[in-house]
Amino acid sequence: MARIVDVVVEDVRFPTSRTADGSDAMNHDADYSAAYVVLRTDEEKLAGYGLTFTIGRGNDLVAQAARQQAAWLVGRDVDELAADMGAVHRALSADSQLRWLGPEKGVVHLSLAAVLNAAWDLVARRAGVPLWQLLVELTPEQLADVADLRYLSDAITRDEAVALLRERAGTKPERIAHLRERGYPVYTTSAGWLGYDDDKLRRLCQEAVDAGYSHVKLKVGADLADDVRRCGIAREVIGPDRHLMIDANQVWDVPQAIEWVRALARFDPLWIEEPTSPDDVLGHAEIRRRVAPVRVATGEHCHNRVMFKQLLQAQALDYLQLDTGRLASINEIVAVLLLAAKFGVPVCPHAGGVGLCEMVQHVSVLDYVAIGASLDGRVTEYVDHLHEHFADPVAVADTGWGPGYVLPTQPGYSTQMHAASVERFRFPAGAEWAGGA
Amino acid sequence: MARIVDVVVEDVRFPTSRTADGSDAMNHDADYSAAYVVLRTDEEKLAGYGLTFTIGRGNDLVAQAARQQAAWLVGRDVDELAADMGAVHRALSADSQLRWLGPEKGVVHLSLAAVLNAAWDLVARRAGVPLWQLLVELTPEQLADVADLRYLSDAITRDEAVALLRERAGTKPERIAHLRERGYPVYTTSAGWLGYDDDKLRRLCQEAVDAGYSHVKLKVGADLADDVRRCGIAREVIGPDRHLMIDANQVWDVPQAIEWVRALARFDPLWIEEPTSPDDVLGHAEIRRRVAPVRVATGEHCHNRVMFKQLLQAQALDYLQLDTGRLASINEIVAVLLLAAKFGVPVCPHAGGVGLCEMVQHVSVLDYVAIGASLDGRVTEYVDHLHEHFADPVAVADTGWGPGYVLPTQPGYSTQMHAASVERFRFPAGAEWAGGA
Repeated sequence: MARIVDVVVEDVRFPTSRTADGSDAMNHDADYSAAYVVLRTDEEKLAGYGLTFTIGRGNDLVAQAARQQAAWLVGRDVDELAADMGAVHRALSADSQLRWLGPEKGVVHLSLAAVLNAAWDLVARRAGVPLWQLLVELTPEQLADVADLRYLSDAITRDEAVALLRERAGTKPERIAHLRERGYPVYTTSAGWLGYDDDKLRRLCQEAVDAGYSHVKLKVGADLADDVRRCGIAREVIGPDRHLMIDANQVWDVPQAIEWVRALARFDPLWIEEPTSPDDVLGHAEIRRRVAPVRVATGEHCHNRVMFKQLLQAQALDYLQLDTGRLASINEIVAVLLLAAKFGVPVCPHAGGVGLCEMVQHVSVLDYVAIGASLDGRVTEYVDHLHEHFADPVAVADTGWGPGYVLPTQPGYSTQMHAASVERFRFPAGAEWAGGA
Repeated sequence: MARIVDVVVEDVRFPTSRTADGSDAMNHDADYSAAYVVLRTDEEKLAGYGLTFTIGRGNDLVAQAARQQAAWLVGRDVDELAADMGAVHRALSADSQLRWLGPEKGVVHLSLAAVLNAAWDLVARRAGVPLWQLLVELTPEQLADVADLRYLSDAITRDEAVALLRERAGTKPERIAHLRERGYPVYTTSAGWLGYDDDKLRRLCQEAVDAGYSHVKLKVGADLADDVRRCGIAREVIGPDRHLMIDANQVWDVPQAIEWVRALARFDPLWIEEPTSPDDVLGHAEIRRRVAPVRVATGEHCHNRVMFKQLLQAQALDYLQLDTGRLASINEIVAVLLLAAKFGVPVCPHAGGVGLCEMVQHVSVLDYVAIGASLDGRVTEYVDHLHEHFADPVAVADTGWGPGYVLPTQPGYSTQMHAASVERFRFPAGAEWAGGA
């Protein structure tokens, strides 16, 4: 028996705004940050580590909310929690006073994600397996009971979820074998940040091609003439057969999005990502109808499963980009993966930031092995930075079929940070911030 | 010239959970609370007071976010702010790092509402007029420039907004005269909290009838047999000609909502309020189609104008119940009032809680005088509690046409609390909380 005895929540911030890494049309000065939750147990070597991702100011608010929510876990037996993680999710999200501050959105939902991510990490460590493995070894009924299906029954019932999972259960071993051999396909965003000049863009696109990437993503939306020039450079470097994606980070109104994407259509983008407000389900549907054959991708700011349900019901998106720090952990993610599988829409999770790549590899593997069961149109984001702060960082390798996430083998959710990194980047007391933000 | 020299944000909580006031199927133990913002100026008698409403835990998070956002106001000249409140709204919502935590939802949006509510109060006090008067005296162009129209141009453009306001401008004086004579029509929720027993329900319904109310609202959704009995009592007491509304506070999935409302339809409810998740635009549209002639009302948890735009576009609601603590103050409220006017949907704002009645009276008057320009189907919520903590509390009077909000006459947004109340109910240090929460 192991019991949770303490919760520590850290406000960790990396000063990424000092370079132009991560710059886009909406977010000019992101300091990639984590509200980082550590669940300590009475076994010295057993703890759970979880985080949500923010971009700087306000990370303290998320950390403070996480402290309040995580208090419920202290004193609980890890094995009892592990036996019914659906109930853990319900208990942690049941506080009606905190619910008022969302509901199920914003700071209290980000913090809930961090706390539950730590709980899932703890449970997988306790079982001695990587989280993806723990999840794909659940029975269809167990996985359906993990899922938060509240407010979804007009789109998918528990019975439908179980039936879908059963249908795919028999062939799980062959999909695991496939991933062991080839990894999970990834694309890179590292080339196309808006703050990079043309020479750097050209060089980074070439490096992506040389590294074997079949997909390259560019930030757009600040200036149309710039976008035309930069898309031209990217398309020239990557050639006609690789995929170019463009990402506007919500800067447009609906009519403007349609006009702008049409103006860039000649560069044959695979998708336009976040063309407008992430809340605008009907707006995305309208944009999708009007910019075809360019496809629509969104989801990194989609705040819960009810919004994803509607994006699917309204046929508003071609690629679903859920975020592992924004949805309330595996419970809500499984619900969204089930919805996407039912509606036949590929899930290509958002990553980058800090710690997101570490988490999404587990989610993409879970989806392929047990839920979506296809790699058709799937490609998960990968950004090559800040992995050095993690004890079990993602690995991307090209085993002959293009770069892919290497199947994680260490126990947990890969979200443990090095103590030295937390110490140095803790805000505002860490050495990195001692000179002021 | 007057300059803002200091911001104080207070976490004020009233222990309403000790009685069953405010109990509903989702919120069992609400402690009505305010994140309360005071903008002090270098003129001793001039300050701005604003708040957002929460129900207890987490009010500290909202207060902390408000402190960060309000810092931008310190050192600014009040008259310069007053000259372009659209710019003030844009400046206060422009922090891209804080935006990540929403965007435009949850804690950082509630706090933005509190800060901007204080700024609007300050500007109206500086002008020496009640806020509704300051707003209805703006030209159509000025009022359109106050509105936050971002992401709305597929539903209403600035030109359309100006045209709509111009069309209604000439007849403003007669509508003001009408309100001076009759007040703005209100309904009461005080009778129907879920925690009240049948005798108390019966007695309070009778009191509402005796007080001249034409509308009475009941909380439902915990137990169908109870709801049938309670609706029966209410309908019996109020008779066939007064309106009964029912409010489920988001407890149902879509299919369940349809079934439950149909089971209560024989009591002829005017509307079902918050039948399901406030995020579920398409769900509300489906419910509305399936429960007619019962109408659908929602909005107190609708987190921003983009969601209201979609509720209107999808024909998902019959009554729009915006919340003055959840939308980012007058700037976003004017945008929503313009949308509602264009789509022809009556606005019946959410109130109750603490301070909401004080604010909504200004909003309903603004809507009738300058924007919606009709009282058809309009009735604003009124709950008779916690007004004793305000320096300029709402007044409801029956001048022969049923109870109505009396047109406010004091300068500002009516949101100043008594210093003694803040002192006593400050959390956790105030005398009321000294024994613990």
